[in-house]
Amino acid sequence: MSKKVVTFGEIMLRLSTPGYQRFVQAESFDVTYGGGESNVAVSLANFGEDAYFVTKVPDNPIGQSAINHLRRFGVKTDYIARGGERLGIYFLETGASQRPSKVVYDRANSAIATAVEGDFDWQQIFSGAAWFHFTGITPALSDSAARLTLAAARVAKEMGLTVSCDLNYRKKLWSTEKARQVMTELMQYVDVAIGNEEDAEKVFGIKADNTDITSGELSREGYKDVARKLAEKFGFKYVAITLRESYSASDNGWSGMLYDGKDYYFSRKYNIRIVDRVGGGDSFVGGLLYALLNDYTPEDAVNFAAAASCLKHTILGDFNHVTVEEVKNLMSGDGSGRVQR
Amino acid sequence: MSKKVVTFGEIMLRLSTPGYQRFVQAESFDVTYGGGESNVAVSLANFGEDAYFVTKVPDNPIGQSAINHLRRFGVKTDYIARGGERLGIYFLETGASQRPSKVVYDRANSAIATAVEGDFDWQQIFSGAAWFHFTGITPALSDSAARLTLAAARVAKEMGLTVSCDLNYRKKLWSTEKARQVMTELMQYVDVAIGNEEDAEKVFGIKADNTDITSGELSREGYKDVARKLAEKFGFKYVAITLRESYSASDNGWSGMLYDGKDYYFSRKYNIRIVDRVGGGDSFVGGLLYALLNDYTPEDAVNFAAAASCLKHTILGDFNHVTVEEVKNLMSGDGSGRVQR
Amino acid sequence: MSKKVVTFGEIMLRLSTPGYQRFVQAESFDVTYGGGESNVAVSLANFGEDAYFVTKVPDNPIGQSAINHLRRFGVKTDYIARGGERLGIYFLETGASQRPSKVVYDRANSAIATAVEGDFDWQQIFSGAAWFHFTGITPALSDSAARLTLAAARVAKEMGLTVSCDLNYRKKLWSTEKARQVMTELMQYVDVAIGNEEDAEKVFGIKADNTDITSGELSREGYKDVARKLAEKFGFKYVAITLRESYSASDNGWSGMLYDGKDYYFSRKYNIRIVDRVGGGDSFVGGLLYALLNDYTPEDAVNFAAAASCLKHTILGDFNHVTVEEVKNLMSGDGSGRVQR
Amino acid sequence: MSKKVVTFGEIMLRLSTPGYQRFVQAESFDVTYGGGESNVAVSLANFGEDAYFVTKVPDNPIGQSAINHLRRFGVKTDYIARGGERLGIYFLETGASQRPSKVVYDRANSAIATAVEGDFDWQQIFSGAAWFHFTGITPALSDSAARLTLAAARVAKEMGLTVSCDLNYRKKLWSTEKARQVMTELMQYVDVAIGNEEDAEKVFGIKADNTDITSGELSREGYKDVARKLAEKFGFKYVAITLRESYSASDNGWSGMLYDGKDYYFSRKYNIRIVDRVGGGDSFVGGLLYALLNDYTPEDAVNFAAAASCLKHTILGDFNHVTVEEVKNLMSGDGSGRVQR
Amino acid sequence: MSKKVVTFGEIMLRLSTPGYQRFVQAESFDVTYGGGESNVAVSLANFGEDAYFVTKVPDNPIGQSAINHLRRFGVKTDYIARGGERLGIYFLETGASQRPSKVVYDRANSAIATAVEGDFDWQQIFSGAAWFHFTGITPALSDSAARLTLAAARVAKEMGLTVSCDLNYRKKLWSTEKARQVMTELMQYVDVAIGNEEDAEKVFGIKADNTDITSGELSREGYKDVARKLAEKFGFKYVAITLRESYSASDNGWSGMLYDGKDYYFSRKYNIRIVDRVGGGDSFVGGLLYALLNDYTPEDAVNFAAAASCLKHTILGDFNHVTVEEVKNLMSGDGSGRVQR
Amino acid sequence: MSKKVVTFGEIMLRLSTPGYQRFVQAESFDVTYGGGESNVAVSLANFGEDAYFVTKVPDNPIGQSAINHLRRFGVKTDYIARGGERLGIYFLETGASQRPSKVVYDRANSAIATAVEGDFDWQQIFSGAAWFHFTGITPALSDSAARLTLAAARVAKEMGLTVSCDLNYRKKLWSTEKARQVMTELMQYVDVAIGNEEDAEKVFGIKADNTDITSGELSREGYKDVARKLAEKFGFKYVAITLRESYSASDNGWSGMLYDGKDYYFSRKYNIRIVDRVGGGDSFVGGLLYALLNDYTPEDAVNFAAAASCLKHTILGDFNHVTVEEVKNLMSGDGSGRVQR
Repeated sequence: MSKKVVTFGEIMLRLSTPGYQRFVQAESFDVTYGGGESNVAVSLANFGEDAYFVTKVPDNPIGQSAINHLRRFGVKTDYIARGGERLGIYFLETGASQRPSKVVYDRANSAIATAVEGDFDWQQIFSGAAWFHFTGITPALSDSAARLTLAAARVAKEMGLTVSCDLNYRKKLWSTEKARQVMTELMQYVDVAIGNEEDAEKVFGIKADNTDITSGELSREGYKDVARKLAEKFGFKYVAITLRESYSASDNGWSGMLYDGKDYYFSRKYNIRIVDRVGGGDSFVGGLLYALLNDYTPEDAVNFAAAASCLKHTILGDFNHVTVEEVKNLMSGDGSGRVQR
Repeated sequence: MSKKVVTFGEIMLRLSTPGYQRFVQAESFDVTYGGGESNVAVSLANFGEDAYFVTKVPDNPIGQSAINHLRRFGVKTDYIARGGERLGIYFLETGASQRPSKVVYDRANSAIATAVEGDFDWQQIFSGAAWFHFTGITPALSDSAARLTLAAARVAKEMGLTVSCDLNYRKKLWSTEKARQVMTELMQYVDVAIGNEEDAEKVFGIKADNTDITSGELSREGYKDVARKLAEKFGFKYVAITLRESYSASDNGWSGMLYDGKDYYFSRKYNIRIVDRVGGGDSFVGGLLYALLNDYTPEDAVNFAAAASCLKHTILGDFNHVTVEEVKNLMSGDGSGRVQR
Repeated sequence: MSKKVVTFGEIMLRLSTPGYQRFVQAESFDVTYGGGESNVAVSLANFGEDAYFVTKVPDNPIGQSAINHLRRFGVKTDYIARGGERLGIYFLETGASQRPSKVVYDRANSAIATAVEGDFDWQQIFSGAAWFHFTGITPALSDSAARLTLAAARVAKEMGLTVSCDLNYRKKLWSTEKARQVMTELMQYVDVAIGNEEDAEKVFGIKADNTDITSGELSREGYKDVARKLAEKFGFKYVAITLRESYSASDNGWSGMLYDGKDYYFSRKYNIRIVDRVGGGDSFVGGLLYALLNDYTPEDAVNFAAAASCLKHTILGDFNHVTVEEVKNLMSGDGSGRVQR
Repeated sequence: MSKKVVTFGEIMLRLSTPGYQRFVQAESFDVTYGGGESNVAVSLANFGEDAYFVTKVPDNPIGQSAINHLRRFGVKTDYIARGGERLGIYFLETGASQRPSKVVYDRANSAIATAVEGDFDWQQIFSGAAWFHFTGITPALSDSAARLTLAAARVAKEMGLTVSCDLNYRKKLWSTEKARQVMTELMQYVDVAIGNEEDAEKVFGIKADNTDITSGELSREGYKDVARKLAEKFGFKYVAITLRESYSASDNGWSGMLYDGKDYYFSRKYNIRIVDRVGGGDSFVGGLLYALLNDYTPEDAVNFAAAASCLKHTILGDFNHVTVEEVKNLMSGDGSGRVQR
Repeated sequence: MSKKVVTFGEIMLRLSTPGYQRFVQAESFDVTYGGGESNVAVSLANFGEDAYFVTKVPDNPIGQSAINHLRRFGVKTDYIARGGERLGIYFLETGASQRPSKVVYDRANSAIATAVEGDFDWQQIFSGAAWFHFTGITPALSDSAARLTLAAARVAKEMGLTVSCDLNYRKKLWSTEKARQVMTELMQYVDVAIGNEEDAEKVFGIKADNTDITSGELSREGYKDVARKLAEKFGFKYVAITLRESYSASDNGWSGMLYDGKDYYFSRKYNIRIVDRVGGGDSFVGGLLYALLNDYTPEDAVNFAAAASCLKHTILGDFNHVTVEEVKNLMSGDGSGRVQR
Repeated sequence: MSKKVVTFGEIMLRLSTPGYQRFVQAESFDVTYGGGESNVAVSLANFGEDAYFVTKVPDNPIGQSAINHLRRFGVKTDYIARGGERLGIYFLETGASQRPSKVVYDRANSAIATAVEGDFDWQQIFSGAAWFHFTGITPALSDSAARLTLAAARVAKEMGLTVSCDLNYRKKLWSTEKARQVMTELMQYVDVAIGNEEDAEKVFGIKADNTDITSGELSREGYKDVARKLAEKFGFKYVAITLRESYSASDNGWSGMLYDGKDYYFSRKYNIRIVDRVGGGDSFVGGLLYALLNDYTPEDAVNFAAAASCLKHTILGDFNHVTVEEVKNLMSGDGSGRVQR
């Protein structure tokens, strides 16, 4: 039985150089669309949930193409407002080996950043819904976007939805001070928080001890500590943390941890040959939400999330095009990559 | 002997759908860079002149790529300022037959629109230069861009350069009232004005009688009338008008007229099977400037300009990649398209 | 106010050689999906109607991709059954000048050809719907497909929907005898029939006098005659005929005629530089249905249909990606193809 | 001195998504042709043998393209029959890291599956030939294909050719019971059998002990056991087994074993960064047949086969485009991948 | 019954810019192989004849690819010698409208230009053959190539083959004086000569009166005159002339004339929308040779040749990928370009 | 403050198969331009130096495209001579895993190989310059090229420039005897020599003990020995050696050593997942020259060079598109490949 899930945020036009080209070499860009919250919606639609993505896009063919891209993969676009000046853009250059991937943002003044209260009827949007998800990116876009996020989270909470938030700190969008103030207010409505090692520190000053993120070493104890502090501070029901070990732009270790207020569940760790790591964290969230919506145990939930996002790293674009069956297959241990005929 | 020519304006990232794809079908965009004034600079560089393009681009790889694109085709980029938030973008969908080409602009808040006085040292820029060219697009970008254009034109005039302006009215950038006010002030520095049938009317209220631009019928007398009125009003030395007969998105008639204050010179008319008509007018200007810089007779000048821009319509991208020899070959009558071995 | 429209038939995987490559040259195929009835559904979705496409596709990623392709362009896929062995395929080589386009069908044993009664609940499907459309291709696929079409048409008629049929005779799928028998039975439920010069003759033995389809000459009187005979024989409310004049694979004349039982309305004729003529007839039907659903006069209806399908010929793929506004713009006379900024 | 070798089976149209795209993302398919037996023929043609591939393809441009693809790489196509309804198709999605490659077959009712006795004159085909090779796929296609395979093997044996068979069990084509019955009958004509760890068990119930194929661990003793049992049961002169260790879709261990009735020869093992592993087994067979045809020692034969197929994993498409010199170079120890200038 | 036909000359690597790109824009080249004599061989192979192409290519992968390209389309490559330094190259930029196509040759020191007598055993090559064809390009490559051509023509004549020559004057390869001397010697062995309006004049000083080749006007009487003079001078059995009217790079008129020593047969004239005109003349020769080999009447022969080469202009690459049936279909009047299903 | 650096040599048209295609599979070639000395110039231009590349290219669009390619990336092309017959070409097939990359040269008779003394005015070229760099490839092209190189080196030395040479032995261009003679004469002008393990031995008979280049094992002591011997023999101020450990075509170890006449500095070693290793050595030279020009310590210099060239291995084409900041970032230890936003 599909459940209605709502995510809210920005969808951007993603322009990436083909293969491993650097920006200065590009004579064409691959075109797709994505963003943290829409990526989660696509994951959930692929898993069979009734996923709605709420945003505002300009009333031009670029905005229409973003909507079409979501529809193609089964996301419901009924509540998307039309108007504003432009769709946010991000340019992507895919790294390899010691050369990191590079993102150039061109997202100021996007339709969603300039959206206003009347663009969304939250009562109608959340009617019949089970879950609301947002990220720390949306309130960072603009003051009005922060107000919209706050209104959405409050109404969702009032209407009894489970509310989740991926902390997702973006230093180019706001200062840590501003982030801490706005996010702290938002956290009162949040049941499930997801973050990585940077987010907790940058947004809330909560630090994983003994971790140097460029060295590829991760401290399990440190993460437990962060999760517990977050849960204590904001009363989260679940705190999930993604654990990326960056060996190089081509190879990463990847796993996750879930804390349910009592115990800490670490997923299996995957050593991944990377095809496209953008949206990796979002696919973890998509997997986690699916698992929690379907009453997985915490251990299964974090493993489902980790397996889903492991697969995402092998897929081009922001979106995670995998089925529940494929995730379960990997989760149950078959990472051999043998041809499926 | 090469002459130093300076053009000033905006260079945009051009993102066009491959072949005849509509925007909603695109999975990739062809990438090039262009804009009225840079297009003229490339024409002149290809003709062997010392062409400088002046603008401001963001200090990121997209801005660098725009510079590289100009350098590739021989344009001097020494005076380009770096900074600002973003490079303007335009999206292009190429039409065919009865379906028109479609341009979606996303150019607000570009680096050049937010450039300020200190970004350019006009004395240095015009040092040793023979000609300065700008278009009606640049002052329309922003008030500061208008001020910069005015300063540039004034200094150029003071330093003895010939100054030319392509009127190029863009209704999405400003109102006719604003355009008339700003452009009227700018015209005092202009020696050579270029426009099409819409510009004179929209900007200065000067109208070509008996012309219906969608019907494909053009009145020679009407154009003479417009050119004469423009020259009289602003004291231009030359007025050039491009005459496009739009039979369809695939086939156009194309020619030009040059008025030297005394006589009216109509070029040969070309019936063109269109590959890419964006930049067609700019390539006419490029040809005209080259011809006038090299003391062509008015008749030869308008014919060189028309032949150059005829060829542009067969070339992908904003830029006109042709040599003087190729233009002369067409100008002298060989439009047979026989293979050159 | 959107109206629910249902179309029923086969959607195929379309594999076409890039550009003008012949099959023996191809190292890749462009992938899209299409078929007469889905093409009509996409047209209607683009025009803002609530368009449902009903078919059966295999439960594999190729079948899923067909669904995704429909969803992308706004078609509702809720009633599509899953199962069967394969998706039908057609290979397409695009012609040019004197070289005709070539279609190789590989559609036998497709999921829809082997679908059975239980796959579709017509009562539910037609609930709240205003219009049902099918073509002569679907009953030709197999005996079971013919039975399904008959059931669908009968239920639609019983439930008060307007029923339309594009005769679309396919000689590779059935004999004229078989076609005549099955189609005659189906016609009792049909209100609006659409065909071209071949269909009426091949299916019902009704012939347009004085017409030689390869010569490019079309007789207006002959078409009137055919339309009148069809309407008299089967009691159609409307008969529409598409009039294609094939000058070459690159250039066609294109227009349509609508007969409302009283008068004959000929549309404006378009001389088209062809990009992709597959789905041209379907886009005429899509335009016609939209116009009739929205109470256009017969004259406006046939002109809307002809303009819509004129534009289709400039668009790659089976689908017609145009808006009502774009069709009206052409219909109102602007075929000049001037760039829209 | 080239030797005439005949292989018999199906050649399919292979449609693969570009790069690492998933099926639902594909807007184009890369086109090539292949199949177990034609892949072996191409290997042998590249090694300089006189390789004939025997099959039946439809008399349309798709069938012609398959023939052209074989001719391009030097395979003789003189005995290929024309007719039937369609060419079999397989769709391929290339995996990466933990995401396996995926094959969707659409091969029912292919020309070769519906071929009949009169299509091939085995006496003529085998005239002057030294070797006949087939696989367990061909008899699985249909009962008539099984009869044709049986006839071919019998005639080949009678005419003194060496007969080889790659067991190649395909569970989607037939049951293990059916396979065992048909294959057992065929084995009486076979001199050289090739298989992997699954084939022997699935087809003949002969099992490699202590091997878990998804774990990447392979038991040398188990394979010896299987080879010996196969040789004893059917009197094979040689039994070869390919040993794949699937670490992931991107990295495999690869080696082979050859049993000559007395001794067991294990090749060097290659750790391969995979480009395209489809046809990997066939390229081992191609290498083995070449080596045995040219009187290599068993040890050299299995090493030649392993080196040849190691290289295949780095080549796109089903076919192995390598020369004897390239294989020998790797076989003799240079796997350093240094640029060859 | 297939007839053995031998052509001799150079096959080059053709590197063309994609679409309508100019050289300075190209980031990739489309790769194919071609040249006057191999183009004729491919035509004949496609028509079902036993076509052998004789040349020398370097013993490297580029040479191998040229051979593969011929084999793919059914040309027999048994007599191709291997060795020498390089394969000749030509770069192609496809024109449009008033912009001509441009060819840059880089063919000096090619394997065939440096081939020597021992590379070819003409007795063996012509054994069982009916026809030998060469062009005026081969003897122009080098003195040794001229000697080889002379030897081949003499042996062919001695062995009773019909010998044909396409005059094909290339001003970049030799002077008119050198051409006249060598070609005059060669003509003694020639039965069938083919040329265009330039060749007769440049090579033999025989001029078509009243013809201005860039104006698009062709004089029928002039061509008759040229053909008659050629036949008289060298005793040709047939003289064929291709008549190209270059309206532009996109549109040409195309027809041919055949003179059998008595009468002049003009083919139907085709107005062609050009896809790729390189190899247009060669495809005329291919059609003519097929028709004469199969005892067509002169009228049918010239019409077959003209229809075949009309179709070539719609096909990318040097080669003419058409069947006898397709040529006959156009020849019999169907140039309507209607889709063939 | 930018310094003027001059490099002299050949720029070639590079034609590479897309992705991992073998030559026999290619239907297109990726086009770029490169060569040892121009690659160094691009590195230096990217690092902000005033880099001039001196060569001769043919006066045709291919030569122009080579110039454009250099200009695009900021290299000054003012001293490039025009003329000669052709641009040298090299064909590249990119290897993977155990399959090596393959280069086919077609560079004989290039414009630079046939250039003469008058083509270059070395006094003018070196005016104001700080550094001159050449490689062992240029004098190997032809006797005249050797004379030109000698003249250039002598004038550079006389004018007080620092002179560097990458030994770069190419066995297909000359014998070791010829190389030793010419290079020995050139070495008298050289201050900084760069080589790899092969060069010193092949050119000067100086051997690194205990090193087997195909085994991937490198002896640090051996390299010290070679560097010291080179410095002693020719009086070099610096000797740099690149140390490549070829595990496979996909994975290499990469580092460098610098000897300043006293001490030996080994850089950090990088294990690289290779995208394109052509130009790897040149990018080391580019980094080294930048570092020495900017007074880096020997330790920093070799580490800057190694980091720069490590990044090159992840970039398509001959050129190294990296900034000083990017190199420093890697040099300072961040090889984690984390996304840069």
